[in-house]
Amino acid sequence: MKIAIITIGSELLNGSRLDTNSKWIAQNVLPYNGEIVSKISIPDTDQDIINTLNYYISQSLDMIICTGGLGPTHDDITAKTLYDYFKDAPIFDDDYWYILKGEFKKRGYDISNLNKSQAYRPSIGKIIPNTIGTARGLHYKKKNTDVIVLPGVPAEMKLMMKTTVLPMIGDLSKTSTSFKMYRTTGIPESHLYEKLLPLINKYPELDVAFLPSFLGVDIRISSKINKDFDKINNQLFSIIEDYYYADNEIELEEVV
Amino acid sequence: MKIAIITIGSELLNGSRLDTNSKWIAQNVLPYNGEIVSKISIPDTDQDIINTLNYYISQSLDMIICTGGLGPTHDDITAKTLYDYFKDAPIFDDDYWYILKGEFKKRGYDISNLNKSQAYRPSIGKIIPNTIGTARGLHYKKKNTDVIVLPGVPAEMKLMMKTTVLPMIGDLSKTSTSFKMYRTTGIPESHLYEKLLPLINKYPELDVAFLPSFLGVDIRISSKINKDFDKINNQLFSIIEDYYYADNEIELEEVV
Repeated sequence: MKIAIITIGSELLNGSRLDTNSKWIAQNVLPYNGEIVSKISIPDTDQDIINTLNYYISQSLDMIICTGGLGPTHDDITAKTLYDYFKDAPIFDDDYWYILKGEFKKRGYDISNLNKSQAYRPSIGKIIPNTIGTARGLHYKKKNTDVIVLPGVPAEMKLMMKTTVLPMIGDLSKTSTSFKMYRTTGIPESHLYEKLLPLINKYPELDVAFLPSFLGVDIRISSKINKDFDKINNQLFSIIEDYYYADNEIELEEVV
Repeated sequence: MKIAIITIGSELLNGSRLDTNSKWIAQNVLPYNGEIVSKISIPDTDQDIINTLNYYISQSLDMIICTGGLGPTHDDITAKTLYDYFKDAPIFDDDYWYILKGEFKKRGYDISNLNKSQAYRPSIGKIIPNTIGTARGLHYKKKNTDVIVLPGVPAEMKLMMKTTVLPMIGDLSKTSTSFKMYRTTGIPESHLYEKLLPLINKYPELDVAFLPSFLGVDIRISSKINKDFDKINNQLFSIIEDYYYADNEIELEEVV
């Protein structure tokens, strides 16, 4: 199923935050047969959020996953914008406010009135539970597109994906995809491509990407037709064996 | 000046690559008075590139920086798509082909005919030199928007930004921005916001962002009016002093 990611927050656009959430989401939807077809980062403004939702919904995607802007401060406008966008009338949730107050007390703080904004719940849409933070998620549907809204804090986003969103994607998906990455060194991209061309032509269902880096060229293959995937992998490996050095996906950029 | 980033490549959407380029670009345009207002990652297809260029050009941005898809293989369609988009008729560049052949020879390889695609140059647009790789960049203009196209390989992109694009942004920009980040711990976001509210109200030109993480809450301030910036910083520091622990921008996500 086709999914777009909208990450909301000026911190992603002024260089103060690296967007690691999108990569995590992209990797983790794959085994559930989700495919990220586009991802965009936008500032915390009503108009940017509305324009972007309109743009993606017009493209008939199966799901849009939004992250960020669910906190209690002035720049956290995502929930309010979504309520307006879906013409929803949120309800103050006394039970959740009681839980929130308890959580703050446990940590030794008085709760701020600002956190009241986080105690509303949608009346048309659904709540996505957050068991480790104060910002709960939202789930709406427009035309055939499920719109999911999650906090930007990575630990919270990941837990909510695992407990709620990934199982939902699994239920909604119909096809499955196999994929594998090979890392090579000591051969230019163009030569590697020439060597692999017969294999690429033989299996038109195979999606092959060449990813040059300063260490060499990585090859990523994927296929929605799984029955020949092991055979293709064996053939590919025998072609690139002399240049192959790893098949994991760890990147030097992530560890320096 | 307002800038959007388009990163082109399926590897950014299937979780095999972390987009570190965008963060680097966002940080490095700031001192030259550039502001990233949106960034999007899209697959290597003609239609995605054309739709996205149309979308951003319609928003009257000053500049669009595209990265990726300038290599020699089947999925590298960016240059071809841009030539068509700008109705350009590229010319085979014999001098550059001679240089490329020499570079391959130096590294001990015969050049592949596939690399011929990298030896074309635009006739309407301009070339952006690449002194450490084979893929040169492109520079077009449509309405008031400069469209810059760079390779996705980080070392090449960064060098081409430093030598050509950043000085261009400096020349085109008219305003300058001051910014600083403070990292705090031991205080909830809502309490921090309440403490800073008088300062936020006193300096309406100040842009204040609260960035929660599992270590605490970071505060990022920026202003286009530079004359009071030191005074504001001193006042802010005296308010958050008890919770402050660092002012650098190193993120744990980047080192684990």
